[in-house]
Amino acid sequence: MSDLVSETLKKLSISAKEVSHAAVSDAKSWSEALTGEGFVLTKTLILKPKTGKTAPVTPVVVIALESTETNATAIGKKLSLKDCRFANEELLASTFQATKDNVSPFSLSHVAQLDLVHVVLDADLPTDTLLAFHPNDAQKTVFVSLDQLKAYLASINKDFIELDFKALAAAKPTGEKKPAAKAPKAKKEAATTAAADDSNQMGLGCKKEEDFPKWYQQVLTKSDMLEYYDVSGCYILRPLAYNVWKEITNFFDGAITEMGVEDTYFPMFVSNKVLQREKDHIEGFAPEVAWVTKAGNSDLEEPIAIRPTSETVMYPYFSKWIRSHRDLPLRINQWCSVVRWEFKNPQPFLRTREFLWQEGHTAHLHLKDADTEVKQILDLYEKVYTDLLAVPVVKGVKSEKERFAGGYYTTTVEGFIPTTGRAIQGGTSHCLGQNFSKMFNITVEDPNAPANATEEAKKLHVWQNSWGLSTRTIGVMVMTHGDDKGLVMPPRVALIQTVIVPCGLTVKTTKEESDKIFDVCQDIALRLKKSGLKSKADLRENYTPGFKFNHWEVRGVPLRLELGPKDLAKNQVSCVRRDTGARFSCSLENLESEIKEALETIQNDMYKKACQKMDESIVRISEWDEFVPTLNQKKLLLVPWCDRVACEDDIKERSARSANDGEEEDEKAPSMGAKSLCNPFQQPTENPIVPGVTKCIACDHHAKHFMLFGRSY
Amino acid sequence: MSDLVSETLKKLSISAKEVSHAAVSDAKSWSEALTGEGFVLTKTLILKPKTGKTAPVTPVVVIALESTETNATAIGKKLSLKDCRFANEELLASTFQATKDNVSPFSLSHVAQLDLVHVVLDADLPTDTLLAFHPNDAQKTVFVSLDQLKAYLASINKDFIELDFKALAAAKPTGEKKPAAKAPKAKKEAATTAAADDSNQMGLGCKKEEDFPKWYQQVLTKSDMLEYYDVSGCYILRPLAYNVWKEITNFFDGAITEMGVEDTYFPMFVSNKVLQREKDHIEGFAPEVAWVTKAGNSDLEEPIAIRPTSETVMYPYFSKWIRSHRDLPLRINQWCSVVRWEFKNPQPFLRTREFLWQEGHTAHLHLKDADTEVKQILDLYEKVYTDLLAVPVVKGVKSEKERFAGGYYTTTVEGFIPTTGRAIQGGTSHCLGQNFSKMFNITVEDPNAPANATEEAKKLHVWQNSWGLSTRTIGVMVMTHGDDKGLVMPPRVALIQTVIVPCGLTVKTTKEESDKIFDVCQDIALRLKKSGLKSKADLRENYTPGFKFNHWEVRGVPLRLELGPKDLAKNQVSCVRRDTGARFSCSLENLESEIKEALETIQNDMYKKACQKMDESIVRISEWDEFVPTLNQKKLLLVPWCDRVACEDDIKERSARSANDGEEEDEKAPSMGAKSLCNPFQQPTENPIVPGVTKCIACDHHAKHFMLFGRSY
Repeated sequence: MSDLVSETLKKLSISAKEVSHAAVSDAKSWSEALTGEGFVLTKTLILKPKTGKTAPVTPVVVIALESTETNATAIGKKLSLKDCRFANEELLASTFQATKDNVSPFSLSHVAQLDLVHVVLDADLPTDTLLAFHPNDAQKTVFVSLDQLKAYLASINKDFIELDFKALAAAKPTGEKKPAAKAPKAKKEAATTAAADDSNQMGLGCKKEEDFPKWYQQVLTKSDMLEYYDVSGCYILRPLAYNVWKEITNFFDGAITEMGVEDTYFPMFVSNKVLQREKDHIEGFAPEVAWVTKAGNSDLEEPIAIRPTSETVMYPYFSKWIRSHRDLPLRINQWCSVVRWEFKNPQPFLRTREFLWQEGHTAHLHLKDADTEVKQILDLYEKVYTDLLAVPVVKGVKSEKERFAGGYYTTTVEGFIPTTGRAIQGGTSHCLGQNFSKMFNITVEDPNAPANATEEAKKLHVWQNSWGLSTRTIGVMVMTHGDDKGLVMPPRVALIQTVIVPCGLTVKTTKEESDKIFDVCQDIALRLKKSGLKSKADLRENYTPGFKFNHWEVRGVPLRLELGPKDLAKNQVSCVRRDTGARFSCSLENLESEIKEALETIQNDMYKKACQKMDESIVRISEWDEFVPTLNQKKLLLVPWCDRVACEDDIKERSARSANDGEEEDEKAPSMGAKSLCNPFQQPTENPIVPGVTKCIACDHHAKHFMLFGRSY
Repeated sequence: MSDLVSETLKKLSISAKEVSHAAVSDAKSWSEALTGEGFVLTKTLILKPKTGKTAPVTPVVVIALESTETNATAIGKKLSLKDCRFANEELLASTFQATKDNVSPFSLSHVAQLDLVHVVLDADLPTDTLLAFHPNDAQKTVFVSLDQLKAYLASINKDFIELDFKALAAAKPTGEKKPAAKAPKAKKEAATTAAADDSNQMGLGCKKEEDFPKWYQQVLTKSDMLEYYDVSGCYILRPLAYNVWKEITNFFDGAITEMGVEDTYFPMFVSNKVLQREKDHIEGFAPEVAWVTKAGNSDLEEPIAIRPTSETVMYPYFSKWIRSHRDLPLRINQWCSVVRWEFKNPQPFLRTREFLWQEGHTAHLHLKDADTEVKQILDLYEKVYTDLLAVPVVKGVKSEKERFAGGYYTTTVEGFIPTTGRAIQGGTSHCLGQNFSKMFNITVEDPNAPANATEEAKKLHVWQNSWGLSTRTIGVMVMTHGDDKGLVMPPRVALIQTVIVPCGLTVKTTKEESDKIFDVCQDIALRLKKSGLKSKADLRENYTPGFKFNHWEVRGVPLRLELGPKDLAKNQVSCVRRDTGARFSCSLENLESEIKEALETIQNDMYKKACQKMDESIVRISEWDEFVPTLNQKKLLLVPWCDRVACEDDIKERSARSANDGEEEDEKAPSMGAKSLCNPFQQPTENPIVPGVTKCIACDHHAKHFMLFGRSY
C-alpha cells in the first residue's frame, strides 16, 4: 500500500484491515485471491471529459460496486460533462499515480488539483458490509466501510454525488443522441480497462500499430528510458535517454564552437519588467509562464518568472555588450532547461512542462550574415536527426502564422511519425530581424555611414537570430524506430552498443567450460570497449539467455553477441541485429573492425528505412477533393499554395470539419485540422508552379510555391 | 540615460532637460562639465543599515544637495536603523543597477522590493531651482524640479521623509556613543564614494590587498567573466567563466563514467509532500526554498518547490528501482542548476541564489562500499582543484555541527583565500548512511541472510551517498590567482591559452612588412590551434599593442606572444607569462612544443605558489591564548580538539567576542567567529595527540585529534 494511503488512513484513525495476495487484474482473480466473507468487491473508474485545448483536465472518479453496470456517457450527461471517456494510463499515472488495476478512492490523495476532480459514488454501495479496494497496489486489498470512505472524502474536503446507475441505465435510450454509435466504443474501452495487467511483464503489452499512445508509454518506461514523475508534465530522464542528449550535445556544441559561438549561462529567473519588454513575443509565452512568488516563508515583493526562452533575458545585455560594429558578430549559446507550463495533455519528450534544450542567440551587422547563420544552424539540426538519430527531416520555412512570436522568419526541420501520420516540428532556427534590437536598443554606428551623417542616421540596429533544439529529439527517435519488442536505438546514440550474452550452457556443461565461456564474453566486452565501442557482457547468473535477450531487446541495444561452446570452437561469435533480427557470425580475430562495420550498417539501414517510410508518406496533390482523404491515409501533403494566413486558417478549419462530419475539432482525434508545416527548400522540379497560372489548392488565389501540410504534434 | 529612467520620466510627462558630457565622478568635474545656470548639483547616497543575517537588506536612499553635509550614523539614528554604513558597489549594482557615480533617485525604478527601501530628502533642496541628477549614467545630467522629483516618488508609491541635516549635525554630539571612533570610519567611506570613477577604465581601479570585495567585483566584470543581473543573487556566467565549468564537467564526468556512474536528469520541481519527507534534511533547506505558485494567470492548487538539492526528489524512485541486491550499486549523477534563495549578501560564485552543480546520488549494499566511493569522489574533487584550477585544498571530515543535514558523515575539500584569511568549503562528499533509505523505504533482501529468517529480518536498508561540486569552484580560482592587473587563468581552464599580438610596427614600417607580421601572427595562431592549444591572434586595427596587452591581461590569458620585425628576423616570438610577467623567447621552429611546455610550467608554478601560501597560512597552535591573535593574522589554525558540538559553539562565540571587544558578531567583519573546517585526513605526525593526555585547545576535555579551524565563507 502506498505510504500516502496508509498514512491517510492512519490519520483518519481508520484501522482498515489489509491483506496481501498475488497481483490481480480482474474481478475473477481478485475474488479468488480473497478468502472469508463480509465484504463486496468494488471498482474505481477514472473518466476524462472533453475539455478545451488549453483548459485543465477534469477527471471523474467513479466508485462503484464491481457488479454495477456503469456507463461513461450517461455519467457525463448526468454531470453535464462533455464526451466522457475512460482515461488513458498516462492520466492515471500522472494525476493519480495509479494504474487501472490498483486505482482506488484513496488515489485521490495523490491528486494535486483536487478541485478539478468529480467524485461519483454508486448509490448501491452497501452501508452494512465492508468494501474491498486496491490501495494503489494490485497485490493488496484493504477493507473499509462506506462511512469510513465518506470520512476519507470529507478529510480531503472532497464532495461527491451519488448516482443510481440502474435508474440511469433505464433512462438511457431517450437521453442518448447516437446510442448505436457510441455504445460499442465505450464497451471497447471498458474491455481495455479490464485487460491483463502487464506493468510487471518485461515485454510490451501492446502493439505499436494498434495502440500507439499506450505503446509509447510502455516503450519508454519498460526500456528504463524514462520514469513518470509526481509533478504532472515533468518526467525523469534516465541514463538511456540522457545519453542521447549527451551525444547530441557533444556533436552540436563541437560544431558551433568551431563556428565561433561561445557557451554561457544566464539565470533561469526573469523579472516581470524585462519579460514584458517585447509585446508580441510575450503574448506568445505569457499563458505558460511559471511564477515564483515565495521564498522560504516570505512573499517576494514582485513575482519572478522562470524563463520560457531567453530572448528578453539576454537582450538587455546585448545592448550593453555591443558598443561598436567590432563587437559583432556576438554569438552565444546556452544549454539549460526552460519551463512552459502547458495545460494541454503532456507527453513525454514531445510536450513537457520542463525540458532541456540549447538556445543560441546571435547578433550581426548585416542581414545576409544572419541569413547565412540561420541556414548553417538548420543544417546542423538536420544532421542531428539524420546522422545521429537516423531520422529524416524536411527543411523549410514556416508560414507567417506558424512563425516565432516576434521574429522575422522561422526555418524548421520537420519530422514525421508514420504510425500516427502526424508531423512534428523538430527544431527551429529563427531570424529575428531587427524587431528585438529596436525594442532593446541594440545598435552600433554604421561603419559605412557617410562622415557627415547625423548620429541618428549612423545608428544601425543589429540583425539577430535565435535557434533551439530540445529533448523532443529523443521522442521523435523513439517513435520512429521503436517496434513491438521495444526500443530500437541507433548505434551512434546508444548507451550500450553491443551486449554479449553467454549461451548454450546446459546441465552437461562442465564448470571449466562454463568459466571459459564467461571469461571470453568478458574479454570480448573489454576488447570492444578498448576500441571505443560501448559494450557490456551480461554475466548475470540465475537468468536464462532468453530472459537476457528480452531484457536488452526492450532497451534497444543495437547488436547482441551470443557466445556458446560451438561458437568458441569455431573462434567466432554469433550476432543478432536489433533492427532487423538478422543473424550473422563474426570471427573473433577481426572482432573490433567487423562489429564496428556492423554497427555502421545498422545505423545506415535504420536511416534508409525511415527515409523510405517518409518518402512514401509525402504525397503531392493539387485538388482540394483529395486533401482530406489523403490526410486520413496518414500522409503529409505537398500542395500548391497561395501563402496567405486567411487561407491557412481556412484549410485548418475545412480539413478538421469535413473529416469530422461537422463536429468540433479534437486535438487527439485523427480528425484534427491540418497545419502548414513548411515551405520546403527543395521544391518539386517536375511540373513546377507556373506563376500566375497554377492555382492554390484551397482558394481562388494563385499558388506561390509548394507547401507541406499535415496533421501535427 | 537608462531606458527605464527615460520611460519613467516620459510616463510622468516630465519633460526633463537632459545634457550629455564626459563621464564625471566628483562634484568639481561635474560642475565644470555643466554650463549655464538655474540649477544646483545634488548627490544621491545609498546607505545600508545592519540587519539580521537572514533578513533582507533595507537600503536608505538619501537625496541631498551636493553641498549638504550628511552623516550616515545620524541618519540611521533618526530612522531607528542600526549601524548605517555606505553601501558597497555590489549592493548598488544588484539592487539599483547603478554605480556610486551614476546613482540617482530614478534608480529606484530598478528596485525589485521597493517597500524595503527608505527614502530621505534633504530639507534644503530648493523649490525654485532645478536639481541636477545623473540618470544612471555618469555621462549625462538631467534637470528636474523638486515637485517633479516628488511626483516621481508618488508615481512609484514611495514615501519619503525630509531631514534637516544642519539641525541633525548640531544635535549630534549628545546623541553619539563613541563619536571619536565612528566619525573617521564614516569619513573614510565617504571618501571612497567620491573616489575616481573607474567603471569605464579597462584596468582595475583598486588593489587586491587594499579593497578585496571591490577588487573581486571588478576582476569579474572587467574580465568579461561575469555580468551582474537584475534579479538579486543571480549572475550571468559569460564564456570565460562558463568555459571553466565545461572543463570541470569534462574531467569529472569522464572520471565518474569510468567508475560506472550514469548521468540522468530529474525535474527541477518538487511537490511539497515529497520535499517534506525527511524532516532533518528539509529543516536545513526550508528557509531558502523558492516556490512556484502561479502558471500563466492560474494559481496552482499547491505550491511547487524548485529543488535546492535532489535527495528527496530522487529517493522515492530509488525505492522503486532497487528491488534486489543485484540492482546495487545504483549510481547516478546529474548536471543541473539548483536554487537556494538566501537572504544573506549574495556574492558571485560563492553565494548565489541559482547555481550550477553536479549532484551524485548512489546506493550500496554495504557501508564499506559507500565509504570507498565517498573517498574516491573526494579525491576527484581534490583533483579538480589541484590539477585543473591550480588551487590547493585540505581534505578531511566535517564536525558533527557542520555535517550535511540528514547525513551520516560529510567529507570536504577546504580551500583558503589568503587575502581575506578565510577558508571556503570547496566541495562535499557525503555518506548518508541509512537515514534516507529508512525514510524512503529503500530496501533489498539481504543476500546473506539465513534462509529461515523472517521477511523483516532479511530486509536490508541500503547505504547511500550524495556528493556535489558547484560553480563556487570558479570563485575560489579567481580569488586565489587574480592580481592587481586582473584575472590570472590557469592554462588548463583558460578559454584562450595564448594570444598573439603584432608589435613593433611604427610609422616607418612598410605595408609589406606590416602585412607579413600580421600573416605570421595569424599563422602562429593556426599552428597552435591545430596542435590543440586555444589560441587567438589579436589583429584588431586602430588599437595599440599596449591596449591589447591590457585587454588580455585583465582577462587572464596565461601566455602572451609578441611578434615584431626583430622577432621575425630572428625567427622567434617573444613570450610574456601572465602569472609572473617573466619574458622569454621561443623559436618558431619548435613553437608548438615550447609553448605547450611553457603552459605546463605556468600551470605548475601557479599551483606551487598557491600551495606555499596555504602552507604558510596553516598554523599549528595548542594554547587558547594564541587562538584569536593567530586568527587575526589571517591564518587557519590546526589545533588539538575534543570533537564536541558544545565546544565548537563555544569556540565560535569566544573567537568572535574576544576579537570584537564584546560587540556583536558581524559576518563581514574580520572579527567573525571561527568555525571548524575539517578533521584533516592527514594529521600531524610530529608531536601527535597523546590520548588521555593532550588537552583540547578550548576546554577541559581531552583532545581526540587535530582539527582545522578558521574564519570561513
